[in-house]
Order: sequence, then structure tokens, then C-alpha cells
Amino acid sequence: MAFPEFQPLNEKTLVDYIKAVPALSSKLGNKFDDLTIKEVGDGNLNFVYIVYNTVGSFVIKQALPYIRCIGESWPMTKERAYFEALALKEHGRLSPEHVPEVYHFDRTMSLIGMRYLEPPHIILRKGLIAGTEYPLLAEHISDYMARTLFFTSLLFRSTTDHKRDVAEFCGNVELCRLTEQVVFSDPYKVSEFNHWTSPYLDHDAQAVREDNVLKLEVAELKSKFCERAQALIHGDLHTGSVMVTHESTQVIDPEFAFFGPMGFDIGAFLGNLVLAFFAQDGQAHEGNDRKAYKQWILKTIEDTWNLFHDKFIALWDEHKESSGEAYLHAIYNNPEVQQLVQTQYMRDLFHDSLGFGAAKMIRRIVGVAHVEDFESITDASKRAPCERRALEFAKTLLKERRKFQTITEVVSAIQQI
Amino acid sequence: MAFPEFQPLNEKTLVDYIKAVPALSSKLGNKFDDLTIKEVGDGNLNFVYIVYNTVGSFVIKQALPYIRCIGESWPMTKERAYFEALALKEHGRLSPEHVPEVYHFDRTMSLIGMRYLEPPHIILRKGLIAGTEYPLLAEHISDYMARTLFFTSLLFRSTTDHKRDVAEFCGNVELCRLTEQVVFSDPYKVSEFNHWTSPYLDHDAQAVREDNVLKLEVAELKSKFCERAQALIHGDLHTGSVMVTHESTQVIDPEFAFFGPMGFDIGAFLGNLVLAFFAQDGQAHEGNDRKAYKQWILKTIEDTWNLFHDKFIALWDEHKESSGEAYLHAIYNNPEVQQLVQTQYMRDLFHDSLGFGAAKMIRRIVGVAHVEDFESITDASKRAPCERRALEFAKTLLKERRKFQTITEVVSAIQQI
Repeated sequence: MAFPEFQPLNEKTLVDYIKAVPALSSKLGNKFDDLTIKEVGDGNLNFVYIVYNTVGSFVIKQALPYIRCIGESWPMTKERAYFEALALKEHGRLSPEHVPEVYHFDRTMSLIGMRYLEPPHIILRKGLIAGTEYPLLAEHISDYMARTLFFTSLLFRSTTDHKRDVAEFCGNVELCRLTEQVVFSDPYKVSEFNHWTSPYLDHDAQAVREDNVLKLEVAELKSKFCERAQALIHGDLHTGSVMVTHESTQVIDPEFAFFGPMGFDIGAFLGNLVLAFFAQDGQAHEGNDRKAYKQWILKTIEDTWNLFHDKFIALWDEHKESSGEAYLHAIYNNPEVQQLVQTQYMRDLFHDSLGFGAAKMIRRIVGVAHVEDFESITDASKRAPCERRALEFAKTLLKERRKFQTITEVVSAIQQI
Repeated sequence: MAFPEFQPLNEKTLVDYIKAVPALSSKLGNKFDDLTIKEVGDGNLNFVYIVYNTVGSFVIKQALPYIRCIGESWPMTKERAYFEALALKEHGRLSPEHVPEVYHFDRTMSLIGMRYLEPPHIILRKGLIAGTEYPLLAEHISDYMARTLFFTSLLFRSTTDHKRDVAEFCGNVELCRLTEQVVFSDPYKVSEFNHWTSPYLDHDAQAVREDNVLKLEVAELKSKFCERAQALIHGDLHTGSVMVTHESTQVIDPEFAFFGPMGFDIGAFLGNLVLAFFAQDGQAHEGNDRKAYKQWILKTIEDTWNLFHDKFIALWDEHKESSGEAYLHAIYNNPEVQQLVQTQYMRDLFHDSLGFGAAKMIRRIVGVAHVEDFESITDASKRAPCERRALEFAKTLLKERRKFQTITEVVSAIQQI
């Protein structure tokens, strides 16, 4: 044990820590004279340090017992680092090409040492704001989602493994509660934490709080989020949790991981792409009207779902004789019934994904935590109509999601707003 | 600790055990010279002893590490006694009038000491076979179900309490696996454990195994059973888990308890009443055609759901400002939205209950464990048509459950078979 009890590290004490941990110091060739340490945590929850010298590099992520951006007034268990490390390892085992390797985990210190995603890796959200196309994004993220969700579900696993891991991740309850509050509750009621582009969206925010049908639908999704242990989900798979280059796609920050509904991950990703789409009109300028880029975002939305669908079904077919409890091969033993159950499963998952995606959009416009896609549009009179279009689409999607049969229909609806 | 390690007790060693446990010996006034001990376990899983003298009485239930009726060839963790004791205490706290009091629990010995349900208490199933009416049954069981299910759900509880208890009951996985196998899997495939009234029902059993739509529907229910932690359910609430007199209704044997879908309990009870209904033609004899009794069973089915519905909604209304996470009062804050969510919730629960009830009926006719309602009809040529009608109704109910709006419609459909 490098440090006997928890303490928040700074640039100086971090060096002492690294020296005491062979798994980390060895990455630097045990050389500390040319060490560079940069604090880069721009997230809401943690301290993040990049550590490198001429030999090697890694990232140190330390959770603090409160939500960093709000301060010590919003306590949040630092045990979330334990669940983040667990999820990184499990998802990394299942999708090693798209999850950074964990070198070291220290539960006492709530500290993870992991691969440094070197430049030109940037946060996908920033790339979307900059208008950069990532030709492999849909291919990669669909691969990550299909593999992590399929292999941690009862389509592949036995009930024994499932209930053991569900019980373990029940421990991440504080992070689940945070999601329940900021995604499924606060936007639909008066809350000191909510804000929006005022005064432009005052009426829109009020309309959300007074929409009974919207509240009915969000209740169903919230119950699913709280009750349905379908797979080990990332729990916060927005475009700020993905780092990209033209060749690489890496999913980070699964501190919200738990056994929940698959659609929550798929919806988070798709919903944040839709937000990026509606923000483009605010990013447009004389030299670039962003019209082509908007088409690329729509194509990425379409490809992501369609590729996910095909990969997920391929995994199911490949492993249909596995020990997965949900569809025993001795029962689902002919092509007709296999087709029947797969069609139904994917239809339900599609509708879940649309619902959760819509809920994630709404909360980013009238809830506590907004997205840089919109926030970077500094002129509020320009930002508000972009947000309003996104909000209107999200409300329709949440209420009418069961009417959509294909992602192409969803993309058409986005274009018609 | 009375005994330092697990050992199965017999009439003789049980006396030594009782003497060493004040919570038990005090019930007998510490008098052991006039003690009577009777082994009465007619269940499939445990030893059950009635212990009494002139001063007092209790029941001792000890779990053995296998399923008793099949023998040591089917191992089954004796830890189930721990979950049974937990559930008895929690459900007993919530519905003390309908759950026997636990006097003593010994985890090492997998042993529960509890209230002896004195005569004329008999197992409800035996009363149904005898044709006895229980005028308070629907009132009592609906009360038990409404209170145990409501108060252990997110309608009343916080996520923190919920996830803590869900994690604990994940430990009862072996009993869950047994249900998954015998209810949701074996009847739909070739299994050495299945049996039915042969040769009469050979074709019917085969038809179940070849019915793709039935398999589709049962998969959805199985997933719900495995994934949805809606409330602390009894897990085996058939008419053999209820003891009755004309004035008293007592629910026993919750060793299958875990956080699962509410409809599984409601369906188990209703489905077993429907089985009792279809068995009546086999119980009829010259002196009693059972026609009036069949009407009483149908009325009890109808009353049970309707009373449950009204009591559950009344609890919801009464506690709508509780800390229940699912429907925060600040959001569901007007009569219209309250009505909207309650209607939707109860409709879904109704359809779940019908589906689970149907699945429980099917497995009792073509699966491993049959019911005395039918088994007591010794003439197979008389038993088979009763079972076939029950099976046909159950298949229709499973496939068409979403078309039923009220329990009255279900009762009509039963009468039309």
C-alpha cells in the first residue's frame, strides 16, 4: 500500500505515490527526473493527471468524495472509483480495442492508473463541435456496445454469474441515484439545480414540467433504469465519455456503471449525437455552413444503430448454444422461433434506446448539466432556437418512440424539425 | 449457539436443540415431559416438525441441502432458510395478520422456529379440493399482496434501501434458478423431469414444446423474472403456500423470496385458483356437482384482483408523498397525471399477472411438479380432460393476455372453455 489512508493527491504527492507503486513507476522506467505532470480533469467529478517522461506515460484518475464542479456541498462517494475500475476491466476484457488498459487500482485512494490516450485523441464532443468527421466512429462504438452489452447479459451468461455481479454493482447506488435525479426527475419539476437559456426557453422549460404524457413516459423509463438488470452498462455513454482520432475510438469514464437497461447506453450515445446535430446551426459560420457535416452526423446515427443491431445479432447467433439463461438452445431450437425472439428483442431494445436517448437530450437542455455543443454557442439568441428544436424533437421521440420501426425513420424525423 | 455446526435433526435431537434455545423452550414453559413432536413436512424441500405441550406450541422448519422429494440427487442450498426467515420477518412486519410470527432463526442449522398454525388451519389447496368456501380469502390475500408488494417497491422506498436489499436477495440465486428451470424452461423442451397424464396428454405436451408463439411469450416473462427487481416477492405463492380457516389466512414458505416482478406472486395465486376451478369437474360426485363451488372460485379470482387493485391504489394515494423514488410527488403533482400513471402501472401489472399465472398453470400440467387438485383425480381418463381444458386456457391467456382489460373478462373466458 503506497499510502495507508485516503488523501487527495496533488502534483507533488503524486510523485511520491508513483514511486511507491511498481506498476506505475515501471511504466516510466523508474526515472523521475524528467517527469511531466499535468492536471487535465475537465469533468465534473474527479482529478485527472497526465504523467509522462521520455520512457512512457499513463493517466492517474482520483475520485474525491464530492462532485468536483459543484464542490463539497454535493457529497458523492469516492467508492465510485472502485466500480469504474471494475467496469473498465470487464468492458476492456470484452472490447480491448475500445477501452483503455488499467495498469493499477488502489481502492483506499480511489485511484486508477490507466493508459494515457495520447494526442491526437480528443474528446468526441469537442471533435463534433469542431466539425471533424470520424469515419470509423460508428463501426467502433457499435462494436464496443454490442460486445459489452451482449456478453454481460443473460443472452450469454448464467443466472449465477449474473446475480453475483448484479449484487456487486448494487453498491454503486449513489451514482445511480445521481442519474435518477438529474436525468429522470429534476427536469420534470421545479429544482434549484435546473437552468436553461433564459428568458428564451422559460416557456419551454415550464412546458416540460407541465406535460403529463411526457411525465408518464419518463416514469416508465425511470422504473426500467432502477429495476431492470439487463447488462453491465457504462451508465454515462455520452460523447464526452468517448475519445477519438481518425483511427481510434476509446470509451472512458464508466464510473456510473451498473447492471441496468442496455438502451440507456445506446440512447446516451445516439441522443448526444442528435444534440450535436441540432447545435451545428449555431456552429456554422461564413466559411462553413456545416450542411455536409450535419449529414455526416445523421449517417453516423443511422450506421451506429444498424451496425450495432447486426453485430449484436451476429454475437447472439454465434453463441446461441452458450450457457446464456435467457434463450436456451433446447427451447429456441428452430429458425422461425429464433427469428421471432430476435425481432422482438431488438424492437424492444430500439424503443428503449430512443426513449432513453430522448430523456438524455431533454435533461441537457433544461436540467443541471448542459453540453458544450450548445454552451459553446455564446450568443443566447442564437443558442436558444437550436436548443428548442432539439427539445421539441426529444419530446416527440419520448412520447412517440414506439411508432418508429427503423433508425432511418428517426433520422427523417430529425430532418423535418 | 445450540449446535456448533449443521446437522439434520430428528425427533430426538430436536428436543436437545429446543432445550438449548430459550426463545423456543420458553414457549413450552420449559417443560419437556409432556412434549409431542410430529413430523408433518409434506412439501418438497424441508423437514417440518410440530412441537407442543400443554403450555404452548411452535413449528420447526429445517432446510436440508437437497430437494427432499427428489433426494440427494438434486442438491439445493440450505441457505434458502436464511432468505425464508428474512422474507417472513419483512412480510410479517408489513402484513402481520397474514404471516406467522418467527420466534427463532439459526443460520448454521438452517432452522426456523415459528408460530404453529393450529387446527382447523389447513393448506388452502386441500380446502379447495374438499370444496370448502373461505369467505374472507380474497379480502385477506389481497391485503397481504397489496401491502407486501407496495411497501417493498420503489413506489414507497428509496433507491438506497432498494439496491441494498436487492443485493442481499441476489444470494437466493439457487432458488431463482430452480424456478427458471421448472417454470420457464423445462415445460417448453424435452426434459427428463417433465411428466403428464400419458398417453392422453402426449400430443398436448408436444404441442407446448412446438409452439413458437408460446415460447416467444414465455421468454419475455422469463426475462422479467430474471431481470426486474420490482418488489420483494414471495416467489412461490400458490395455494399450497397458504393456510386457511374460515377466519384466518396465513402465507407460509417464502423460501423462493427475492426482488422480482410483482405479477409473479399475483399470477401464482390466481393461476392456482384457475387450476382448482378446472379440477372441480374431476372432484364432482353424485352428492355434489361442484357447480356452486366453481362459481365461488371464479368470484374469489375476481374479488382477489379487484380488491388487490383497490388496496394497492389506496396505499399509493396514502403514501404519495413518501420517499418512494418511482413517482416523486413534486413531479406527479396533479390528479390527471396521478390517474394516468396509476392506470398504466396497474394495466401493466395486470398483464404481467395474467402471463405469470398462465405460465404457472402450464408447468403444473406438463412440467416436473404437479398439483394435488389434479393428482387427486385418480382416474386418468377423467383427469386428462380437466388438465387439457386448463392447459388450453393457460396457453390462450399467455398469448392473448394483453387483450384482457378486466378480471371479469378473464373469468368469462374461463367459463367459455
